[in-house]
Amino acid sequence: MSRLDEIGEFGLIDRIAKVTPGAANVVEGIGDDCAVVRVGDRVVLLSCDLSVEDVHFRRRYASPEDIGWKAAASAVSDIAAMGGRPLFLLVALACPKQTSVDFLEGIYKGIQSVARQFHIAVVGGDTTRSLDHIALDVTVVGEPVNERWMLRSGAKAGDVLVVTGPLGLSSAGHRALDRGEAVPIALANAHLRPMPRIAEGQWLSAQAGVHAMMDISDGLLQDAAHISKRSNVGVDIKRTMQVCTTELRTYCDAQGLSCLDFCLAGGEDYELLFAVEQEKVLAIFTGFAATFGRDLHTVGVCTNEFNALRLDGCEPLVKGFDHFRS
Amino acid sequence: MSRLDEIGEFGLIDRIAKVTPGAANVVEGIGDDCAVVRVGDRVVLLSCDLSVEDVHFRRRYASPEDIGWKAAASAVSDIAAMGGRPLFLLVALACPKQTSVDFLEGIYKGIQSVARQFHIAVVGGDTTRSLDHIALDVTVVGEPVNERWMLRSGAKAGDVLVVTGPLGLSSAGHRALDRGEAVPIALANAHLRPMPRIAEGQWLSAQAGVHAMMDISDGLLQDAAHISKRSNVGVDIKRTMQVCTTELRTYCDAQGLSCLDFCLAGGEDYELLFAVEQEKVLAIFTGFAATFGRDLHTVGVCTNEFNALRLDGCEPLVKGFDHFRS
Repeated sequence: MSRLDEIGEFGLIDRIAKVTPGAANVVEGIGDDCAVVRVGDRVVLLSCDLSVEDVHFRRRYASPEDIGWKAAASAVSDIAAMGGRPLFLLVALACPKQTSVDFLEGIYKGIQSVARQFHIAVVGGDTTRSLDHIALDVTVVGEPVNERWMLRSGAKAGDVLVVTGPLGLSSAGHRALDRGEAVPIALANAHLRPMPRIAEGQWLSAQAGVHAMMDISDGLLQDAAHISKRSNVGVDIKRTMQVCTTELRTYCDAQGLSCLDFCLAGGEDYELLFAVEQEKVLAIFTGFAATFGRDLHTVGVCTNEFNALRLDGCEPLVKGFDHFRS
Repeated sequence: MSRLDEIGEFGLIDRIAKVTPGAANVVEGIGDDCAVVRVGDRVVLLSCDLSVEDVHFRRRYASPEDIGWKAAASAVSDIAAMGGRPLFLLVALACPKQTSVDFLEGIYKGIQSVARQFHIAVVGGDTTRSLDHIALDVTVVGEPVNERWMLRSGAKAGDVLVVTGPLGLSSAGHRALDRGEAVPIALANAHLRPMPRIAEGQWLSAQAGVHAMMDISDGLLQDAAHISKRSNVGVDIKRTMQVCTTELRTYCDAQGLSCLDFCLAGGEDYELLFAVEQEKVLAIFTGFAATFGRDLHTVGVCTNEFNALRLDGCEPLVKGFDHFRS
């Protein structure tokens, strides 16, 4: 029986870690895009994403390949949000026993397309029966690159908030598909085949001055509110932001809808949202465009004038999508 | 641009591993209780287990704590099957929006009870809406102990097949609960609160002569057939096996049922099934009883006289439970 003064503080921590690996080996637990844990001396990123038929997708307009692609892409996007590298996927699938094997193979093909594109191995999972709807949980295991991982916390007053691409396309696509309208291909693609920003996340995590990052899954306002809360800083989103594409504007004009609403509250774009210090903005915008051939877009600023999410200085009426309130 | 003769075979493997970590870093992919992967120089065990309301459990007789316990325990049991140590859990939960918060808290309490008992950290997950049934996917991340992990493959002709405890209790408990009968507590507990055999799995993986191991989730015959197939060896299960408890016998006698049927085909006992060489059986039985205060039970033998699963030398009519055929 050792005494504390014999084994010391770090001896004690090692002992505790052996008995409760949870306590000492959890770097970031519940509350960010991924959990960050230690396995021995390695840092591992863990996340999962659950999709339910007729909540997240409908067979009426989503092919089985689309369903698989999106389920995997949304899980992998959580690794992008940390600036990490995805390594392995597990797939848990519940489906009614009448489901055709072709349909299920299509789902796995969609998952494999994501896996191939991002060099991920599908290593296991579970299949079981459900009574009436398909449910699909994709777990992703990754690791940080650059020995650094980006959190939602860390944004500072004075930082500029930036997104890696246009917003609102996915939710406009969802609306059009759901209503059975003729859907512009850019909108349908954005909704059915979102692209995890893995390379962009890794590049951004290597840039000095990037303080916080996440992916936009629930809509800009709602997700920016997470950065505000976790970073304990005010966030002011600006209506003057330029994140609307021609395709979205054309669709909205034809339907008499507001582009800005889709950009502010529409979820599932899976672009990255990050906070970067003012002095680094120009270099990062230039470097990003040179590397990826696409532009970054400023959407707001971090401030210490208030401590919450605001839209042009005012509290927004609606933030975005809540699974349990829709 | 390097040439192959400059970087050599292992240089090439390293290059490939960097581009497709899947290929080179997957030690065991789909087909065993866990996936076995490498993250850097660490070996990591991955598994997930999906439970669906009215397929795997009913709210009528399972408390929310029971539901959470069993979902976590069945995932953790996959780590036991490899002789590993569970480290982290992710919980993905889909439920109808009317579900009471108390009920959901109960599910998480059940999961936390397993986590506490086995020193596992619940580090993340996902929650979303479902339309009518609860679905619960628990992902577990673990690591091998003794630098060894047990697979379903590896059993050899002449090996004895052994289980770590009595069988059939869970499925008899399921039957009684489902029929609304007065349920003997041992049967109800076996069904609602199965115990992952983590310490037993670790101990067995450290014993010389244990060649293959898995947990019994789908029933002895069905699971033993996996060992037969993955090890490419015949398996003969013996009706003379002594894996029936007094409680199961009493229940079956009162109901006019066959104990043996429950022991052979009843799933979800989560005892471990392993193949051990004949010369080591006595030492392992003695050591196990001394360590755990419980007896091991011989259930069959591995043979090269045939290459499939048999029951007393004959092909069994029914093997066990298939989620998509029940």
